[in-house]
Amino acid sequence: MSQIKAFCFDVFGTVVDWRRGVAREAARFFHGHGLEHIDAHQFADTWRSLYQPAMQACRNGERPYTRLDVLHRENLEKALRSFDVDITTITEAELGALNLAWHRLDPWPDVAAGLARLKTKYIIAPASNGNIAIMIDLARRGGLPWDAILGAEVTQAYKPAPQAYTRMAEILGLAPGEVCMTAAHNNDLHAARQCGLATAFVTRPTEHGPAQSTDLEPSESWDIVAHDFNELAGKAAL
Amino acid sequence: MSQIKAFCFDVFGTVVDWRRGVAREAARFFHGHGLEHIDAHQFADTWRSLYQPAMQACRNGERPYTRLDVLHRENLEKALRSFDVDITTITEAELGALNLAWHRLDPWPDVAAGLARLKTKYIIAPASNGNIAIMIDLARRGGLPWDAILGAEVTQAYKPAPQAYTRMAEILGLAPGEVCMTAAHNNDLHAARQCGLATAFVTRPTEHGPAQSTDLEPSESWDIVAHDFNELAGKAAL
Repeated sequence: MSQIKAFCFDVFGTVVDWRRGVAREAARFFHGHGLEHIDAHQFADTWRSLYQPAMQACRNGERPYTRLDVLHRENLEKALRSFDVDITTITEAELGALNLAWHRLDPWPDVAAGLARLKTKYIIAPASNGNIAIMIDLARRGGLPWDAILGAEVTQAYKPAPQAYTRMAEILGLAPGEVCMTAAHNNDLHAARQCGLATAFVTRPTEHGPAQSTDLEPSESWDIVAHDFNELAGKAAL
Repeated sequence: MSQIKAFCFDVFGTVVDWRRGVAREAARFFHGHGLEHIDAHQFADTWRSLYQPAMQACRNGERPYTRLDVLHRENLEKALRSFDVDITTITEAELGALNLAWHRLDPWPDVAAGLARLKTKYIIAPASNGNIAIMIDLARRGGLPWDAILGAEVTQAYKPAPQAYTRMAEILGLAPGEVCMTAAHNNDLHAARQCGLATAFVTRPTEHGPAQSTDLEPSESWDIVAHDFNELAGKAAL
């Protein structure tokens, strides 16, 4: 703990409640288009499920790094089609506006206060696969006092690619062990640990809704385990 | 003015007083090494004078993008040698510590308040040739409430290369005309305007010391001209 100088954070799920936020925005859209029969939470899950495959094409070199706003926009059409929505009836501007759902997500209630406490002692930055414009909007909306926006658009690598972690430490001018990756996802922390980073697991048992079955417990002995960002800040102050 | 959504800032000279800060750090170093005969302000000017040539090698493709901390470190040895300092008597750790002078610069007195006012209406970010770690340290030291750290390490381009400006707008998800480049240097604004950005000139008549002869006046009809960041915030609120 004594060597840690920066905490870097996964964002979707760990910092913000993407499922509820995307469902809220989608429900508004469906209401305006006579599509109220679509379950907005199910739609959010479908849209989100296309996220990993889209990044995988960038990770394995099939396509160059492409920012998440672009991937989300492509996936939005796929998601709408999977619910039998006739895309041709929706304008480009309306699709663009709905794509901004990912810019309008609220943080979990403990986040802003926990980050403010951590910032008094550590550098804090998002290490998200989301691009900078998304992170700026989420920070302004949720009062997240980041020192910098790091993540995929800066490292040009999508987690869990090793470069996403190693380049982040290099950019901060720190050794990997001086950076603590914080996430609600064991696989993110596993990849970070492989690169020598410290690890903090924060449980988010309702990220995927009330019936969530994944990431309810730490899968390895992470350096810190906490139930929210206030507990994390308390343990980090030791 | 009504279309501007983000203000991006040159930092060395415009936001922080690099000459006084580097001279202060260098004077401390010289004092510890029996080198008090060296004029610390002259040394700061010499170190700074090697900045443009070093970046030029990156701009014209002779070497890949290399972060400014590395260029500063290379230039530090050249600067010391030009004052006949025997580098072999100085440890690597001491040189590394002196190189952090660029992380310990104070903002001009109007900056923090002006930025806080601008942030209520606009996205604000540094658009510096300095790398992210320098910008984080300057922001924490000076209380600069950036929404994100942009600049050379994010765009992988050194101003005044056009990509330094165009990629910045693209990253923000904005049209070039929605971004206002703010600088105390006419050439920076000239390059930004060529790329379609809005422009704000803030005079810093003592950046180069009491006898400064450059950038005392706007060389073109920039969209905003102000004497400090408070005046800038006032004009931007119109």
